[in-house]
Amino acid sequence: MLTTICFDADDTLWHNERFFRLTEARFVELLCDHADPDHLAERLLDAERRNIEHYGYGVKGFTLSMIETALQVTENRVPGAVIAEILSAGQEMLAHPIELLPGAEQAVTALSEDFQILLITKGDLIHQERKLAQSGLGERFDGVEIVSEKHAAVYRDIFSGRSIAPEAAVMVGNSLKSDVNPAIEAGGWGVHVPFELAWALEHAEAPRAHPRFREIGELSALPALVEEICRNI
Amino acid sequence: MLTTICFDADDTLWHNERFFRLTEARFVELLCDHADPDHLAERLLDAERRNIEHYGYGVKGFTLSMIETALQVTENRVPGAVIAEILSAGQEMLAHPIELLPGAEQAVTALSEDFQILLITKGDLIHQERKLAQSGLGERFDGVEIVSEKHAAVYRDIFSGRSIAPEAAVMVGNSLKSDVNPAIEAGGWGVHVPFELAWALEHAEAPRAHPRFREIGELSALPALVEEICRNI
Repeated sequence: MLTTICFDADDTLWHNERFFRLTEARFVELLCDHADPDHLAERLLDAERRNIEHYGYGVKGFTLSMIETALQVTENRVPGAVIAEILSAGQEMLAHPIELLPGAEQAVTALSEDFQILLITKGDLIHQERKLAQSGLGERFDGVEIVSEKHAAVYRDIFSGRSIAPEAAVMVGNSLKSDVNPAIEAGGWGVHVPFELAWALEHAEAPRAHPRFREIGELSALPALVEEICRNI
Repeated sequence: MLTTICFDADDTLWHNERFFRLTEARFVELLCDHADPDHLAERLLDAERRNIEHYGYGVKGFTLSMIETALQVTENRVPGAVIAEILSAGQEMLAHPIELLPGAEQAVTALSEDFQILLITKGDLIHQERKLAQSGLGERFDGVEIVSEKHAAVYRDIFSGRSIAPEAAVMVGNSLKSDVNPAIEAGGWGVHVPFELAWALEHAEAPRAHPRFREIGELSALPALVEEICRNI
């Protein structure tokens, strides 16, 4: 039997990548008078990749990587006013209201009647907490795990720490790399809900042949899928 | 009976504030040719206070607050090279090796034989995890809670989530505001281990008359104190 449904947060329950893309576009526009506009987005991605190990995920690290890139591509000649704009862009991302994705509220509410519901997300602690509070879904969750990375070992620790049999747990998310694949590797089920935008650092292959892998187009299809899995195990 | 000893991390188990002070001094030095050197540290503290709500605690938010202050005090005229230096200073803080405080390793090791040992800390998720891993003390802890704020409600949640009776738990830390007072308010014991440096935003009064308040000069005195508390309850 399934006992536990775990949800990823960003781009699974609510919009996230959209705001990174908008801010990245603003960054490119701010810089295009001061540096070669080609490859600006690539240089930013390089900085993010280089910094992820010590900054981790989230808006603060992204803001610091934008500032670093602005300095590098201009050989430190970027005007202070542009740096100030980048800082503001980061603060606006942190203050931006939550926009739930279609079907998110209904799926979480319906499943919370019969299952233990967990949120498993990575990113900045305080920002993820604020987004959950703003989402209005906080009360539906029996537990929240904000982690620095979503490897199989992390899912194993979460399951064992809460005395959940891995095969009784479903992880639902938009990222194959961080949500679906490591949860399956940890012994659980992985349900992929693809999102139109994906960050380059989140790419991975779908384990299409795996018996505990499923894919749905939208969260509204999740309750029926969970029911079907329960009928067949 | 006591069952659980909880430790704060920064400036309880290892040095932290020292690195913030050194970086702040470097910040003031970097800026003193470009702005009125008086009140620079105050302006930085103002920015930290203003930003703590959305940045939370930790080095990334501190770095962003330094950059914001540098722009403000120079009316955006700060040279890019100075911003680059501030970014580097933040990255050096993140990469700095752990320096354990006197008695930390011995106290944690001795108490882990007879008690459940938890780490309860706030700050950047990935940085706190890295510091714990580097400290070599990770294996001694039965659980790690990295939280965005340390209010009484947070301690209550941690205790109840782990089925710990509050009166059976001791919280040990250098901050009256974040460690000692809220743990006592949550029904637990609070042991204050004052540290020579304290951040202005961490100030609070000691509850000297409270029956579950204790103070020790160094962590080496903790095992004997815990034994004494156990004898008298």
